[in-house]
Amino acid sequence: MELLFLGTGAGVPAKQRNVTSIALKMLNERGAVWLIDCGEATQHQILHTTLKPRRIEKIFITHLHGDHIFGLPGLLGSRSFQGGTGPLTVYGPAGIRAFIETALRVSSTHLQYPLFIEEIEEGIVFEDSHMAVTAGKLDHGIDSYGYRFAEKDKAGELLVEKLRADHIPPGPIYKQIKEGQTVKLPDGRIIDPVPYISDPQPGKIITVLGDTRQCPEAVLLAKEADVLVHEATFNAENEKMARDYFHSTTVQAAETAVQAGAKKLCLTHISSRYIKEEEQQLLKEAFARFESVIIAHDFLEVPID
Amino acid sequence: MELLFLGTGAGVPAKQRNVTSIALKMLNERGAVWLIDCGEATQHQILHTTLKPRRIEKIFITHLHGDHIFGLPGLLGSRSFQGGTGPLTVYGPAGIRAFIETALRVSSTHLQYPLFIEEIEEGIVFEDSHMAVTAGKLDHGIDSYGYRFAEKDKAGELLVEKLRADHIPPGPIYKQIKEGQTVKLPDGRIIDPVPYISDPQPGKIITVLGDTRQCPEAVLLAKEADVLVHEATFNAENEKMARDYFHSTTVQAAETAVQAGAKKLCLTHISSRYIKEEEQQLLKEAFARFESVIIAHDFLEVPID
Ligand SMILES: [Zn+2]
Ligand SMILES: [Zn+2]
Repeated sequence: MELLFLGTGAGVPAKQRNVTSIALKMLNERGAVWLIDCGEATQHQILHTTLKPRRIEKIFITHLHGDHIFGLPGLLGSRSFQGGTGPLTVYGPAGIRAFIETALRVSSTHLQYPLFIEEIEEGIVFEDSHMAVTAGKLDHGIDSYGYRFAEKDKAGELLVEKLRADHIPPGPIYKQIKEGQTVKLPDGRIIDPVPYISDPQPGKIITVLGDTRQCPEAVLLAKEADVLVHEATFNAENEKMARDYFHSTTVQAAETAVQAGAKKLCLTHISSRYIKEEEQQLLKEAFARFESVIIAHDFLEVPID
Repeated sequence: MELLFLGTGAGVPAKQRNVTSIALKMLNERGAVWLIDCGEATQHQILHTTLKPRRIEKIFITHLHGDHIFGLPGLLGSRSFQGGTGPLTVYGPAGIRAFIETALRVSSTHLQYPLFIEEIEEGIVFEDSHMAVTAGKLDHGIDSYGYRFAEKDKAGELLVEKLRADHIPPGPIYKQIKEGQTVKLPDGRIIDPVPYISDPQPGKIITVLGDTRQCPEAVLLAKEADVLVHEATFNAENEKMARDYFHSTTVQAAETAVQAGAKKLCLTHISSRYIKEEEQQLLKEAFARFESVIIAHDFLEVPID
């Protein structure tokens, strides 16, 4: 899995940073890409990557501010135009359905694939054998959700070399052992499966928060996450402004990462007021509280490992 | 006046051409810019020009296909965010109001300027002392309008040098002469104003058509236009495809320019299937019928003179 940042700016597009969108690439794991948020010109950003719109299986919208949703109608239409036929589901706060349906209806956009729209509430919004996605409400004036993407633990692998070394012959019993069954061999031996299965691999946890003030729900969502993506619209000294506009500072984002015990923090939603050198200052502020931190930029790809 | 092409592609954005938007710059004439159409990422294109969103006074939408309107919500919001306070009017086919109002409502976008939305029909959609704008319905499957922007004739200038040469002394009578009044001088002479006023300057005519098949209404809208902007989604040999998809070929656009007696033709809405060399072929096809033709590209500026 990788996180690919498609837009890392705040509020309005700027030359250096487009408005928000993040791709969670799971091409090896499920042959699919999920998007979190879809600001205007997300499909334009995708043109400069290897992402294929038809691979986008789900889009999770954190909140309905324009810089997080105005790219949706165009992306949905282009995915169809470019031959996407697989179903796509959009998850988002109440109102996302009216926005999408009005845009598609007015523009006579007829999609060549099934589109599902789910207006979410707190709790598990999606789960299958690979992933569970939990949404929690943050503190942003309007409904803003954070999403916790929790990969399921991977079952242990059968240790074939060890079976062979112990002269346990291949056959259907290998499958039984892998499934954890105790088996009896033709030679009378009783085989306990446990020593022949490697430890299960814990699934990765990626938490992506919508715009928010510092809040306890953010800590819950990010609990022991491998990667936490957190907005940092303001620098440390603008704490009052962050509060007034329902945003966070660099330091607040870092504090949330510390409280959650997250392993890595990616700061995004960076205001265009902070140019090159000031960006280093933002990083320093967060680093003073939490050392595994980076500032995202458009097209940054972060491996989840 | 100048036409500045912000997006010249067809259907979906491509690296070389964004989806449709054209700026009619009238900074000297009325301190304002008008837009025709506003595809997704029009505001991003504007970032690469000297245009100021707050100077955008009117937006004329030709039709509601997504590649002509999906940039509206973002542009309207950013104009406000960037300090635009002057009123703005959007003209477009029925449905444009629902699209804009839903997008702004759902996204909690509160504009800091008065926004007017006028759902148009055929006829004069705007007129003041400088400009008259007439809309006419084209042939595109859904309602698609062409707009004829007719600048008012400029009154003749007072020929001050000539007045002086004839020993007509300056004073309030200069104003009377300029207004076309016959005046009597203190020395008894009766002055006919006509010789002292230059010929009126005919206003310029710019016609910008929405997507369309070749049709008589297009010729009417473009009658003696100084510049005709016409789509050319297909090359000459794809006439059947153009007809099936309610579009025009290069040759059809040129024929409309000929029939209308237009002075200059700008082809736009160029499909991304035509790359560099094929573009020259498109130009040749049109040129064979009408010699004053160019193919627009993103950021091309065409002076109206
Ligand atoms: Zn927001
Ligand atoms: Zn169209």
